Amino acid sequence: MALSATASSLSASTPSPLPPTPPSRSGYAAACYSLPKFPSHVRLVVSNPLHKSNPLTRYCLPMSQLGAPGRGVVRSSLIDPDGGKLVELIVPEAERDARRAEAARLPPVKIGAVDLEWVHVVSEGWASPLRGFMREHEYLQSLHFNSFRLDDGSLVNMSLPIVLAITDEDKQAIGNAPDVTLVAPGGGFVAILRRIEIYKHNKEERIARTWGTTVSGLPYVEEVISPAGNWLIGGDLEVLEPIKYHDGLDHYRLSPSELRKEFDKRGADAVFAFQLRNPVHNGHALLMNDTRKLLLDMGYKNPILLLHPLGGFIKADDVPLAVRMEQHSKVLEDGVLDPKTTIVAIFPSPMHYAGPTEVQWHAKARLNAGANFYIVGRDPAGMGHPTEKRDLYDPDHGKKVLSMAPGLEKLNILPFKVAAYDTVAKKMSFFDPSRVQDFLFISGTKMRTYARNGENPPDGFMCPSGWKVLVNYYQSLQHEELGNEAAAVGVKS
Amino acid sequence: MALSATASSLSASTPSPLPPTPPSRSGYAAACYSLPKFPSHVRLVVSNPLHKSNPLTRYCLPMSQLGAPGRGVVRSSLIDPDGGKLVELIVPEAERDARRAEAARLPPVKIGAVDLEWVHVVSEGWASPLRGFMREHEYLQSLHFNSFRLDDGSLVNMSLPIVLAITDEDKQAIGNAPDVTLVAPGGGFVAILRRIEIYKHNKEERIARTWGTTVSGLPYVEEVISPAGNWLIGGDLEVLEPIKYHDGLDHYRLSPSELRKEFDKRGADAVFAFQLRNPVHNGHALLMNDTRKLLLDMGYKNPILLLHPLGGFIKADDVPLAVRMEQHSKVLEDGVLDPKTTIVAIFPSPMHYAGPTEVQWHAKARLNAGANFYIVGRDPAGMGHPTEKRDLYDPDHGKKVLSMAPGLEKLNILPFKVAAYDTVAKKMSFFDPSRVQDFLFISGTKMRTYARNGENPPDGFMCPSGWKVLVNYYQSLQHEELGNEAAAVGVKS
Repeated sequence: MALSATASSLSASTPSPLPPTPPSRSGYAAACYSLPKFPSHVRLVVSNPLHKSNPLTRYCLPMSQLGAPGRGVVRSSLIDPDGGKLVELIVPEAERDARRAEAARLPPVKIGAVDLEWVHVVSEGWASPLRGFMREHEYLQSLHFNSFRLDDGSLVNMSLPIVLAITDEDKQAIGNAPDVTLVAPGGGFVAILRRIEIYKHNKEERIARTWGTTVSGLPYVEEVISPAGNWLIGGDLEVLEPIKYHDGLDHYRLSPSELRKEFDKRGADAVFAFQLRNPVHNGHALLMNDTRKLLLDMGYKNPILLLHPLGGFIKADDVPLAVRMEQHSKVLEDGVLDPKTTIVAIFPSPMHYAGPTEVQWHAKARLNAGANFYIVGRDPAGMGHPTEKRDLYDPDHGKKVLSMAPGLEKLNILPFKVAAYDTVAKKMSFFDPSRVQDFLFISGTKMRTYARNGENPPDGFMCPSGWKVLVNYYQSLQHEELGNEAAAVGVKS
Repeated sequence: MALSATASSLSASTPSPLPPTPPSRSGYAAACYSLPKFPSHVRLVVSNPLHKSNPLTRYCLPMSQLGAPGRGVVRSSLIDPDGGKLVELIVPEAERDARRAEAARLPPVKIGAVDLEWVHVVSEGWASPLRGFMREHEYLQSLHFNSFRLDDGSLVNMSLPIVLAITDEDKQAIGNAPDVTLVAPGGGFVAILRRIEIYKHNKEERIARTWGTTVSGLPYVEEVISPAGNWLIGGDLEVLEPIKYHDGLDHYRLSPSELRKEFDKRGADAVFAFQLRNPVHNGHALLMNDTRKLLLDMGYKNPILLLHPLGGFIKADDVPLAVRMEQHSKVLEDGVLDPKTTIVAIFPSPMHYAGPTEVQWHAKARLNAGANFYIVGRDPAGMGHPTEKRDLYDPDHGKKVLSMAPGLEKLNILPFKVAAYDTVAKKMSFFDPSRVQDFLFISGTKMRTYARNGENPPDGFMCPSGWKVLVNYYQSLQHEELGNEAAAVGVKS
């Protein structure tokens, strides 16, 4: 099948939850989507490459230094990972028994589900050159500068503190041991953490500097940081075996190394990454298809889209990963995105909802996976303010900060206009401020309301088969809630 | 006189509030201070230059690249200001009338006393290459990265947002005007702000990212940010005449350009800056004298100390500038510091009390003034937590963050050990953890209590004449308070 062609070739034994045969490409346009007609204002963008029309371009390397066409063959694998070499921290199979035996003798540190996601992320090199949980000198650089200085004086981006918290009791039990064993939430050795360093976990400072607010109601803070211990433990990871979730989606979890191989196999001369944690509507598709067109116009011969949904911790009212993956598969089956030039894989990181700080992490991780273009839209990694009626972050700050971020100069940032439902054209179009009355913004809340009520959104908002996945999910959720309510009433009576 | 030798030569007409004749150097040791004997642990430091024993050295340029002895003549003026050229924004005298006439026609924006201090700071180039109040792309870089990227791709440090807030009414009155006139708190045109940009002032985000906390009770926040408007206005400054305070201390306010000339005049081959906002006790003097010895041992021939008290906004319970200047003058008169190798000048910046973020600003500004060494002690720019019984910042973070800060690589950071009162040697010594019971830490609170009660601190804590200045200040304060109380009682009765 189209969507999981890449994935299944890499883990053929895992059964795919998605239908096995891709629909023919010819069928899709009629079904739910017409190819964007590139109205005049978009044409403008295309003929003036976006990275040049971006007023922040002076903080980006010029195209000529990005290995653009005209300067020889461009291959995604020419984009070096941060630090020059992709970090991979899985113990080779031949050594696993010995390491497991050692792990059994070291002080154990129980980690949580989100910590495990970070072990996964770091073990595959998404955070290269980071080789484990941050020690204090790394943590401080991340917190204050959103970047690390390497021994050669260069900077790599590192905007989120990737840290492991432990309790006072953990600290006491570890004593002076130089190494510890990380134990999974359900038991079982995950990794050895070597040459550890334990330092204070000033939660308030971490939160304030990462989120730019200490307001209550930040999902990652409430669920991960507040309940955590008062110490951070840094060190180098040796991960005893690849992290798997056994949720039927592991075959989508391609590592940066696997993705790089796939880009090479497909002969990509440009890879453009699209981070998302929501269902794909036709506005997203417009952005992605338009980007491909832009890259072709720039002279690239085979631009490949990395459609890269986030797979780790998300807030309770986001759509669960399995539902999103099913929805994404429909979008490809229906041909809204072209399976031949699209790779769908899961990005295993947890979500912070830290806006301009987090978008840097999202971009940097994709750079490590070989992407040389990164699409950034309105309010990336943002959310509503937990206590006020506004966005938590200025919706433009994400793309501005990303364009200026130290260590991301080699990544080409593609800031995009907002797409909205065009009630005249009856499809998603780039918002045209000269005819504001023609556009309908369909928020996440509105989308959920439609789906809960079993209503259809306006024609052309999302392909019908993808929409059906959402309707089914929200209705099952509603049934569950009704069930819970009934049960609660039962208890009360 | 020794203390103001530099200053008075530059503004001879301003009467000095300090005594006119320096005491002979030979008289001082007996009076209040014995030259440090450099006990064994200090020797160690001296023979292993501090910048090499600092574990964070890998983030600093090696000494060989700092223009150290052996690589030719070292002059302070060899340290280029950030951006390559010192920014100076005072309108030349010949053009002032025309500019004033223009200022009268532009929309006026009334600024506050602290804003005026920032105009002063920026106008003299302490913040080079910044040429005015930050526009949004500068503000965002400062907030997120503590640094700016220049057009040549290099980074300069810029950790504090230097911004000007305006109200909704100001914004409306400005309309679409490209330039505005800044009006002093007491009236009078201060400067023209050119090519303005107005953007949102998200106070919470600014505070959280600058201080790493949003706790109430932060002095700069409460007195400057909270009452300020909801918009920031950036632009290029043209300052109509040099900023003066007419407080009898203007002759101490040497600009970076004046300081650089003075360093050259004295033939300095190393300049080490000491930032302070408190009276100088013998522990400070020990650090400064020890640094000079260290630099001599490293091969410098004429290291000059820049004793550089902060002169702008401070919190209510800090010692006022005029009292501190008088106290500093006594320290030099008494020979605790050597007037021949010391320059005392006022650093005109307001104080944020933002710890690791602010210490970068303190260092960067001195680099712009020509200093190539910066002394950093425990908890720089820190204060007590406003609501908890602890320091607001980890006392070690300041020097760590400073040693890693982007754009400060050419400045040699000298982290120093804590000095405390050694009850055996009866003087201030570097703290020796092997005989912790011999040391007495005299906090600011304790010092104030001594002074209020007219008690003397232990012999050797501070030279007696300097101490007397403090006693007089605190007792006058007490009389004033008693007077106020009496008056209050009077009103009530």
